[in-house]
Amino acid sequence: RWLLDRGLCSSWISPRPADTHKGRAGHLCVLSGSAGKTGAAALVCEGALRVGAGLVTLFVPRSLNPVMEVKLTEAMTLPVEETEAQSVSLAARETILEFLADKEALAAGPGISLHEGTQALLKELVEKSPVPLVLDADALTILARDPAPLQNASSPVIVTPHPGEMARLAGLSVPQVQKNRLDVAAEFSRRHNVIVVLKGHGTLVAAPDGRLAVNTTGTPAMASGGMGDVLTGMIAGLVVQGLEPFRAACLGVYLHGLAAEEASGNATSRGLIATDLLPVIPRLIGRLETED
Amino acid sequence: RWLLDRGLCSSWISPRPADTHKGRAGHLCVLSGSAGKTGAAALVCEGALRVGAGLVTLFVPRSLNPVMEVKLTEAMTLPVEETEAQSVSLAARETILEFLADKEALAAGPGISLHEGTQALLKELVEKSPVPLVLDADALTILARDPAPLQNASSPVIVTPHPGEMARLAGLSVPQVQKNRLDVAAEFSRRHNVIVVLKGHGTLVAAPDGRLAVNTTGTPAMASGGMGDVLTGMIAGLVVQGLEPFRAACLGVYLHGLAAEEASGNATSRGLIATDLLPVIPRLIGRLETED
Amino acid sequence: RWLLDRGLCSSWISPRPADTHKGRAGHLCVLSGSAGKTGAAALVCEGALRVGAGLVTLFVPRSLNPVMEVKLTEAMTLPVEETEAQSVSLAARETILEFLADKEALAAGPGISLHEGTQALLKELVEKSPVPLVLDADALTILARDPAPLQNASSPVIVTPHPGEMARLAGLSVPQVQKNRLDVAAEFSRRHNVIVVLKGHGTLVAAPDGRLAVNTTGTPAMASGGMGDVLTGMIAGLVVQGLEPFRAACLGVYLHGLAAEEASGNATSRGLIATDLLPVIPRLIGRLETED
Amino acid sequence: RWLLDRGLCSSWISPRPADTHKGRAGHLCVLSGSAGKTGAAALVCEGALRVGAGLVTLFVPRSLNPVMEVKLTEAMTLPVEETEAQSVSLAARETILEFLADKEALAAGPGISLHEGTQALLKELVEKSPVPLVLDADALTILARDPAPLQNASSPVIVTPHPGEMARLAGLSVPQVQKNRLDVAAEFSRRHNVIVVLKGHGTLVAAPDGRLAVNTTGTPAMASGGMGDVLTGMIAGLVVQGLEPFRAACLGVYLHGLAAEEASGNATSRGLIATDLLPVIPRLIGRLETED
Repeated sequence: RWLLDRGLCSSWISPRPADTHKGRAGHLCVLSGSAGKTGAAALVCEGALRVGAGLVTLFVPRSLNPVMEVKLTEAMTLPVEETEAQSVSLAARETILEFLADKEALAAGPGISLHEGTQALLKELVEKSPVPLVLDADALTILARDPAPLQNASSPVIVTPHPGEMARLAGLSVPQVQKNRLDVAAEFSRRHNVIVVLKGHGTLVAAPDGRLAVNTTGTPAMASGGMGDVLTGMIAGLVVQGLEPFRAACLGVYLHGLAAEEASGNATSRGLIATDLLPVIPRLIGRLETED
Repeated sequence: RWLLDRGLCSSWISPRPADTHKGRAGHLCVLSGSAGKTGAAALVCEGALRVGAGLVTLFVPRSLNPVMEVKLTEAMTLPVEETEAQSVSLAARETILEFLADKEALAAGPGISLHEGTQALLKELVEKSPVPLVLDADALTILARDPAPLQNASSPVIVTPHPGEMARLAGLSVPQVQKNRLDVAAEFSRRHNVIVVLKGHGTLVAAPDGRLAVNTTGTPAMASGGMGDVLTGMIAGLVVQGLEPFRAACLGVYLHGLAAEEASGNATSRGLIATDLLPVIPRLIGRLETED
Repeated sequence: RWLLDRGLCSSWISPRPADTHKGRAGHLCVLSGSAGKTGAAALVCEGALRVGAGLVTLFVPRSLNPVMEVKLTEAMTLPVEETEAQSVSLAARETILEFLADKEALAAGPGISLHEGTQALLKELVEKSPVPLVLDADALTILARDPAPLQNASSPVIVTPHPGEMARLAGLSVPQVQKNRLDVAAEFSRRHNVIVVLKGHGTLVAAPDGRLAVNTTGTPAMASGGMGDVLTGMIAGLVVQGLEPFRAACLGVYLHGLAAEEASGNATSRGLIATDLLPVIPRLIGRLETED
Repeated sequence: RWLLDRGLCSSWISPRPADTHKGRAGHLCVLSGSAGKTGAAALVCEGALRVGAGLVTLFVPRSLNPVMEVKLTEAMTLPVEETEAQSVSLAARETILEFLADKEALAAGPGISLHEGTQALLKELVEKSPVPLVLDADALTILARDPAPLQNASSPVIVTPHPGEMARLAGLSVPQVQKNRLDVAAEFSRRHNVIVVLKGHGTLVAAPDGRLAVNTTGTPAMASGGMGDVLTGMIAGLVVQGLEPFRAACLGVYLHGLAAEEASGNATSRGLIATDLLPVIPRLIGRLETED
C-alpha cells in the first residue's frame, strides 16, 4: 500500500520534451452534460486541459451546443443526437464510436442524466469503446443497476465513485463502504478488473493487480459540487498523455487535492468552488515534473 | 443587543471536519431570475457557493435555461414552467415542492418579477416549503401586498428587506422605518415570527425571541445593484450547512460587509460591483473559523 | 481653460456618505447594441457601474436579450421592440420614455446601428428624454445627418465625438477639426448648447458657458475598439450620481485615461483592451475622493 | 538566416505615437469558426487585439452569431450566410469582399470546417482578397487539395502550417518535412510566393526573397489546442498595424512563444491553455518597443 505524496508522485512524471506537439499530447473525448448539468461538462474538459491534454472534444446534445460553445474555448464540441430530455441519446452511438477510433481516451458520466436512452448509450460505450474509459457520476449509477457492461469492457476502465456510488456499485450500505474502504475498493477492482478511485477523506486508488494507494492531499473545502468533475477530467487528461492508468489515477487524485489546498491557501474549510482549482494545476504539475 | 464584530461572529463558526463531503454540506434551492433579471439569480447561487453550500440548484423559467447554464458552472439548474413574461409560473409548483423535499433551504425572490402567476407561486411556496426560506426583493414586495402566507409558513423564514421594502411590509413610510430601525425590525420579527434582516448602514438582524444584532461592517461602495442578491445567497448558504437561522443571518451580514471592505481595499466609496465580493469570501470565513 | 489633472479632479469628488444606498446612487438607462455590436452595450453598462452608478438598465433588441443577459450580471436588461436588423426600433419609444421618467440619465448611441427605425427612435429620444443624455458613436452619426433634435432637446446633452464624428457634426474635414480642436469644440458647444467631449490625444471638454478643459491622461494603447464605449458609460455613471454634467464629463475623461495608464502599467503602447480598464477604475476614484 | 531573439525583434517595433487612434491602428477581418469550433474564432480575434489591432470584425455563420456575441466583447461580428453545417458559405462572398475593401487584412482558416461551400468560399477569398491574408488550419487543408488559388492570390499571403499541414501542402511526409524544415519552408515560400511560418520546436519563418528566421522562444506547454489560433491572430494583428508581413510573422512567432513562457512562469511543461497567453502579451510587446 502506497502513500500518495510528493516523493512518489514526482517519480511518475517528467517534463515533456521540447518538441512535444498537440498531436502527441493526446486527444480526449468527453461524454458529459445534459439539461441543467452543463457545468459538469465544462469542468471535465477544463480539468483535462489543465493537466496537459493536447485536444479535448465534448459530445454534446445538439440543442445544448450553443451553451457549451460559450462555456468552452480551447475544448471543441461535437453536437450529437439527443433525447427529449436534452441528454445524449443512443442514436449518437455510431458517431461517437467512429470518432473515438483514433483518440486516446473517453471520460464519461458527469451530468449525463439517467434517461433510458442515455443509459443504453453509456452501457454500449463501456462495452465497445476502443479507448480507455474514465467513468464517474451518472455513469456509475447506471452501471450499479446493470454491471454487465463493466465485465464486457474491451478497454481499460477507471471508475471514480464517492462512497454513495461505491455502495450502490458494490451492493453495500455507505457505512459498510466507509468502514472497509480499502477492502471494498480492492475487492471491486479485482472482481471487475477496473481501477477504482474511491473518493472521500483519504481517497484510495486500487488496481486489479493489487496495487493500492492512499492520498495525502485535500481539504474539507472540496465538499462542493463540481469538484469530482474536475478530477474525472484530470485523470483522463493524464491517460491521454500516455500515463499508465493506475498512475494517471493516482497523480490525478494527488494533484486534485493539492490544487484545492493551493487555491484555498489552506486558509478556509469552505467556499472553494471547482473552477478555482483549474488555474493552479499547471504549476503544481511543474513542481512534480522537476523533482526527482 | 449584540454588535456583529469579529469576536462574536468567530464564536459561531468552526472549521469543518476533514471528512466533510458535499452531501453533508447542504443542498440549497434557489428561486430567482426572470427576463432581464438573470444576473440576480447568478449572484444568489454564487453567494451560497462562496460560503460553502455543498450543492445549489436554481429553478429557472424554461426559456431562460440556456442563459443560466452559461452564467453558472458549479450551480445546477432545473428548468420549470414559465409565464409569458419568462418568470417561473404557478404550474411549476409541484415540481418545485417535490424537489425541495430532501433539500436544506430555499432562497427566493431576487428578480422573480411581479407577474400574477409568479406571485401565486411564491405565496404557495412560502406557506408549503418543507425547508427554511430566505426571502428577498420581489418576494418581499409580493408579501407586502398579502402577508398572510408569512403567517402560515410551515418552515422558518428569514426576510432581508432594505428600508423601502421594510416600509411596505410594515405599512410605514421609509422615514418612519429609518428613524426606528430597531423597533420596526424587532416588532415585525415578533409579530410574523420571522427573522428580519433590515439592510442599510448598520444592518440589523432581529429574531422573534428578541435577539437583536447590529452589523459593524460595510462600505458605501456597496450601494449598487446585486449586492443584496449576494447576501441572500450567503445567508441561505450558511443555513443549508446547519447554522441556526439567526446566526446564519448574522454571519452572512457580517461577512457580506467585510467582503465589500476587502474587495474595495477600503479605498473607495464607489465602483464596487457585486461580483467583486465573491472570490474574497472564502478566506474571510477561514479567518473566522480559526479564531476562538 | 483648465488642465484636467489630479488636483482639479479631486476637488470635484468626495467620498460618498456611509449611508449611501443604491436608490440614491442613481439609475442609468442605456440604449446601445445591435446585431454584431453587443460588446459596445456591455462596455457602456460596465463603465457606468465602475464609477458607482447604483443601477443600470439596458434597453435591448428583444432577440438579443439572451446574449446581453449572459454578458451582464449587475446591469439589468429591458427587452424592447426591434427592427429586422436586430436594432431597437421606433416602436420601443413609449416603453423607453415611460421607463426613463424616474431615472437619472440616458447613455445612447454605441452600436445602435444606422437602421432607419433606430435613427427615428434616437432622434425622438434626444428631443423628449426627461433625463440628461450622453450621446456617442452611431447617435452622433445620426445627429450629423439631422442636428435638429439637438436644438430641441429638453434635457442637458453631452456629446462625445472622436475627430471624425466631430467633423461630420460640424460640417468640417478631420484636418480642420484637428487643427482647431479648441475652437471647434467650444463653438459647437455654444451653438448647440451641449457639452462637447472631443476625444483624441488631449481630449477636450467644452461647456456652453465657455468652460473648457484639456485632459492630461491617456496612452496610445487606448487606440482600440470599445474604449469610447467605456468612457460613455463612465460619464453617464457620474451624471446619475448627481455630478454637474461638465464636471461629470471632465472626471470621466480624466479617469478613463488614468485607468488605461494604470491597466497597461504605462508599459506598452498597444494591446490594451477596453475590458482591462474596468477593474482598475474604483481605486482610482478612491484616490481622487480622499485627496483635497 | 536570422535568430528571432529579443535584439532582432526589438529593432522592428517602436512605441506608437501619442496621437494614435483606433482608425489608424488597423481593422482586421477574421474568417474563423463553425459548429463545434467557435473557440478558434474567439482566440484569433483576441490574439489580434492583444498585439494592438485597432478594430476586429469576425465573419460568423448567422446561426452562431449569438455564441460569438457572448464570447467576444471588443471584437465585432458580421453575421453572414451559412451552410447547413453552420459554417460560412459561398453565398457570403459578396458581403465579405465588399467589407474587406477598406480594411487592412484578413485572417482565415481556424475552425472554418471542410464543408464544400466553405472550401469554395475560402478559395475565392484567397484569390480575390484586396488585403493581405494570414491563412491557417482548415484553410491550409483546403489549399493542400487545390493550391491554385495560392498562385492566383492578388494580395500578400502568410501561411502558418504545423508540420502535418506543411506535409500536405508540399506533398511530402511529416518526417520528410521535419528532417528538412528549413529547405521545405524556404522552397514552398519561393515557389508559391508566400511567407511560410512552419510551426513546431524552433518555428521557422521563410520569405520568398530568401529571408529565413528561426524562433528562440516557446515551451512544450504550448502543445494544446488553440495555441495556433492565437498565433494567427497575433500575426494578422501586427499586419494591420502596418508591419511588413515577414516582420509581422517573425514578431508574432517570437511574442507567441514568449507569452507562453511568461504565462507558465517557465515552470511547467503542460497544462497551459491558449487563453492564458492573451493578458501577458501587451507588456511583452511593451518591452520590445522600448529596447533599441
